[in-house]
Amino acid sequence: MSVLLETCSRGTACNGPMSNVSNKLVVVTTWCQTVRPVKRRDFSVSARLGEARVSLRGAEVRQRSTSKVFKSADDAIADLKDGTSILSAGFGLCGVAETLIDAIRKKGTRNLTVVSNNAGAGEYGLAKLTSRGQISRMVVSFIGNNKALGKQYHDGQVAIELCPQGTIAERLRAAGAGIPAFFTATGARTLIETGGIPIRLGAKDPHTGKHEVIEPGRARETRIFDGRTYLMETALHGDVAIVRAWKVDEAGNCIFRTTTKTYGVLMPKAAKLAIVEAEHIVPVGSLNPDHIDLPGIYIDRICPATSEKHIEKLVLASSTSTSTPTTSPEQSSDAEEEAEAVKRNRIARRAARELKDGFYVNLGVGIPTLAPSFLPPSTKVWLQSENGIIGMGPYPASRDAADPDTVNAGKEAVTLIPGASTFDSAESFGMIRGGHVDVSILGALQVSATGDLANYIIPGKAFNGMGGAMDLVSNPDQTKIIVCTYHTDKNGRSKIVDQCDLPLTGKGVVSTIITELAVFEVDRSGGKGLLLTETARGVSVDLVRQKTSATFTVAEKLGTME
Amino acid sequence: MSVLLETCSRGTACNGPMSNVSNKLVVVTTWCQTVRPVKRRDFSVSARLGEARVSLRGAEVRQRSTSKVFKSADDAIADLKDGTSILSAGFGLCGVAETLIDAIRKKGTRNLTVVSNNAGAGEYGLAKLTSRGQISRMVVSFIGNNKALGKQYHDGQVAIELCPQGTIAERLRAAGAGIPAFFTATGARTLIETGGIPIRLGAKDPHTGKHEVIEPGRARETRIFDGRTYLMETALHGDVAIVRAWKVDEAGNCIFRTTTKTYGVLMPKAAKLAIVEAEHIVPVGSLNPDHIDLPGIYIDRICPATSEKHIEKLVLASSTSTSTPTTSPEQSSDAEEEAEAVKRNRIARRAARELKDGFYVNLGVGIPTLAPSFLPPSTKVWLQSENGIIGMGPYPASRDAADPDTVNAGKEAVTLIPGASTFDSAESFGMIRGGHVDVSILGALQVSATGDLANYIIPGKAFNGMGGAMDLVSNPDQTKIIVCTYHTDKNGRSKIVDQCDLPLTGKGVVSTIITELAVFEVDRSGGKGLLLTETARGVSVDLVRQKTSATFTVAEKLGTME
Repeated sequence: MSVLLETCSRGTACNGPMSNVSNKLVVVTTWCQTVRPVKRRDFSVSARLGEARVSLRGAEVRQRSTSKVFKSADDAIADLKDGTSILSAGFGLCGVAETLIDAIRKKGTRNLTVVSNNAGAGEYGLAKLTSRGQISRMVVSFIGNNKALGKQYHDGQVAIELCPQGTIAERLRAAGAGIPAFFTATGARTLIETGGIPIRLGAKDPHTGKHEVIEPGRARETRIFDGRTYLMETALHGDVAIVRAWKVDEAGNCIFRTTTKTYGVLMPKAAKLAIVEAEHIVPVGSLNPDHIDLPGIYIDRICPATSEKHIEKLVLASSTSTSTPTTSPEQSSDAEEEAEAVKRNRIARRAARELKDGFYVNLGVGIPTLAPSFLPPSTKVWLQSENGIIGMGPYPASRDAADPDTVNAGKEAVTLIPGASTFDSAESFGMIRGGHVDVSILGALQVSATGDLANYIIPGKAFNGMGGAMDLVSNPDQTKIIVCTYHTDKNGRSKIVDQCDLPLTGKGVVSTIITELAVFEVDRSGGKGLLLTETARGVSVDLVRQKTSATFTVAEKLGTME
Repeated sequence: MSVLLETCSRGTACNGPMSNVSNKLVVVTTWCQTVRPVKRRDFSVSARLGEARVSLRGAEVRQRSTSKVFKSADDAIADLKDGTSILSAGFGLCGVAETLIDAIRKKGTRNLTVVSNNAGAGEYGLAKLTSRGQISRMVVSFIGNNKALGKQYHDGQVAIELCPQGTIAERLRAAGAGIPAFFTATGARTLIETGGIPIRLGAKDPHTGKHEVIEPGRARETRIFDGRTYLMETALHGDVAIVRAWKVDEAGNCIFRTTTKTYGVLMPKAAKLAIVEAEHIVPVGSLNPDHIDLPGIYIDRICPATSEKHIEKLVLASSTSTSTPTTSPEQSSDAEEEAEAVKRNRIARRAARELKDGFYVNLGVGIPTLAPSFLPPSTKVWLQSENGIIGMGPYPASRDAADPDTVNAGKEAVTLIPGASTFDSAESFGMIRGGHVDVSILGALQVSATGDLANYIIPGKAFNGMGGAMDLVSNPDQTKIIVCTYHTDKNGRSKIVDQCDLPLTGKGVVSTIITELAVFEVDRSGGKGLLLTETARGVSVDLVRQKTSATFTVAEKLGTME
């Protein structure tokens, strides 16, 4: 180490602002240990918005009268008013501020607007509030696990603004970072652009069976950069953020475990008042400055997390699974099931050929998740999970090994492999939109001859939300989008069509379509149309033509799916 | 912990993608230890852009032929071409990829465009390349410490695009995150908006003494949101990023120490190819997934960091400093110096009264840094340093205690206090623009009766850049902007003027002006003008009027500065 410029060792600068402060950072040893919640006798509940900051200066850590620490979640939300907008962290039931939600339910605050990725599940998370009718409006990406809320929406009892997952994350980040608006390709040329998803429904017309639209969706302004269409999205602010963190020091510095970071890191920045429920409240100086996920400047109130954590979906790794991935992973005694497994495995095996050694890959639920099982041993890929993992590992081996803080995009408990990393949702969707993921494999309801994909909504039937699907297909030039799907739906109708009639997830995004019958390459510009490049063994071009509602060309050198 | 939905313990899902992967995360013990660089016999230099990814799957970590690890920086930049655009991380000399810069200097690559916060200092950092004329264009926020580059600019040898520090950080983040453009208040109604700072100069006109402008600045599109003017800024991409990290595993996962995060976390995301020089290259699995600052997905090449780190400015904490902050921190034997100290301390003492207990405060260099010394013992504030610290501590006590990885905004080595946190520049300037900092105290060249501030450039004289100053004043409604300055400049001219004639840092941003003579409150809307609220003991209103070039009203109840 050399020193370029030694200004002085006395004088103004040396007698500067911090001359009476210890010049040694207290060496922190506790951040690798389990720290029990601090026992406190003297809790202040007098802190108000903007004044709820504890401070320290100098090596001596002293407690101020304006402590950020509250005795309980009840105290921390005591002044919550009807009509407040709440930013509620978590992904599914992972990382949700369950203690604060319990307190809000108990307090009975009503007419709440809530921004959250999901709306709870069963009787947990925000479902505790939706089931009581305490929420009048939500901004959310996926409500599929709160069926009752879907009914409330259709009955006109609640307004729901569906927003792509990555766009929610980025809008929250923008709100915290003084960015009033930004442009994103996510949702371009879909109902998000046109405002085509109603926010609040009215009465059902007895003749048409359709609901009156009380509040239509909000159309987005568009703009073309470098030949691509982008939507202008605006900052998403809230009155109060409620988040749950693993360790929080009394100055409000927060550390989140694995996939609890999702929105926990973002929402306090976007709210006027931020409340964190902490699994461990630790003294100032206990945390390594390099390990802080959320600096205390963003936190106004801290209370102990006392409500239980929940695992939304638990799937255990099969103890009989083999270590040879090329072995067919599906064996069933039932003939029909076996036939299904043959189809699925054929699609997955072919999809695996799209994955090159060292690729970073995002896999949608269902058939896509089978693909890596068919990789040759020499090909290793990193699995990205859009809720904030690279290096996603297998399901836990036992219930005890399942970690409620570590879930995949399907809200199932998973593990991490060596070399994994975890991050918040703004980071994860920045990675996705930025085209850093090499391949994304998704399922489809419909896919068109020009690469349009519909895979998130069936009007009048399934109103679940798009989750991260629109983000995952938002950069098809840099992230290859592959659809893995059965050729036809359960009614025998072709999923491959000239034009989708279902609402689009993305327009001109799919490069390759893999079904149990065939493989198509897609000219996303639309110029050359669909090209049949491979058929499954024993499948004729005529059969493919018969089962396909889209026109296609047959490749000169037609291959066989393997 | 409860389980909401146990899907199954066999079948498709269980035999999914990762069934042959160990279900235990290897317990990591090394991240708290010093890890020596891995000794490797077999280095691959065959990796190419987009293929330089090492992979692993399963618990067994195996080395692939397409390793990311290169033997040396020379090998890692062997294919670097003239005319490449380089994103060069670091802040001042802190966190700079000195080894890779040495390699580029040795290779002699020319006509480079370089994006960096600074341009090196002395003969270190990017100064190694500017002094050889290898850089033809820079995007930079502050070049004040590379005087030779300022001369090159004025001689028309190099193009320099000055860009506010937070805007550089956010433009880089946007490039990595698939955001083509965003809006920011930073630089609104300044030369950044009008494109008034020339990028490349030509010959000097012998009559006017002014340079011909070969390439003018780039004007920004503006837009009003919620009554405020914002500039549209676009994503800032590069061909190659060069960064230095503390620990990097062989999959490219990076950990940065304290203030080396600044741009190290951002630049690899914005580049087509990212190269990291690592102080420690560690095996995959050595790093805690929760501690990764930059996931390996962003890193293409890793090489050992072998060049020395440098401390740009070393100031040692005075061993004689007292622990009583109200003691005047400046004592000098020289009469003139003593008079200066009295003036400075009067300003700083008054400024301290603006700081409330628990405030988060950003202090500009010079007089502002003295303010906390005058706080009563019961008032403790957190110091924010815009390069990425909350909880900045004093100068190190000795040269040995000085950490080249931990510097303040003035590039001086500092320490951290208990409860500190460190973060990258996108986070830091998000915090600043978002108005999370309570008070920002800055110096001034000129300040106007309507709160306009000029404090970064004197045309024809000082061409240093604005650094983070424009960002620091970008949210004056939420972050109170206080100017601490001598009343007059060294030529006796009033710094308080009706209208600034120097280029503005921000328009209508200053709320309070504190000088050695008086305190003014500013109506930033311009409606009520300047209000004199306090005068120093023994200073008459007439004297203030005589020394002030701006018209002002005298408060009905005029106070005395204390």
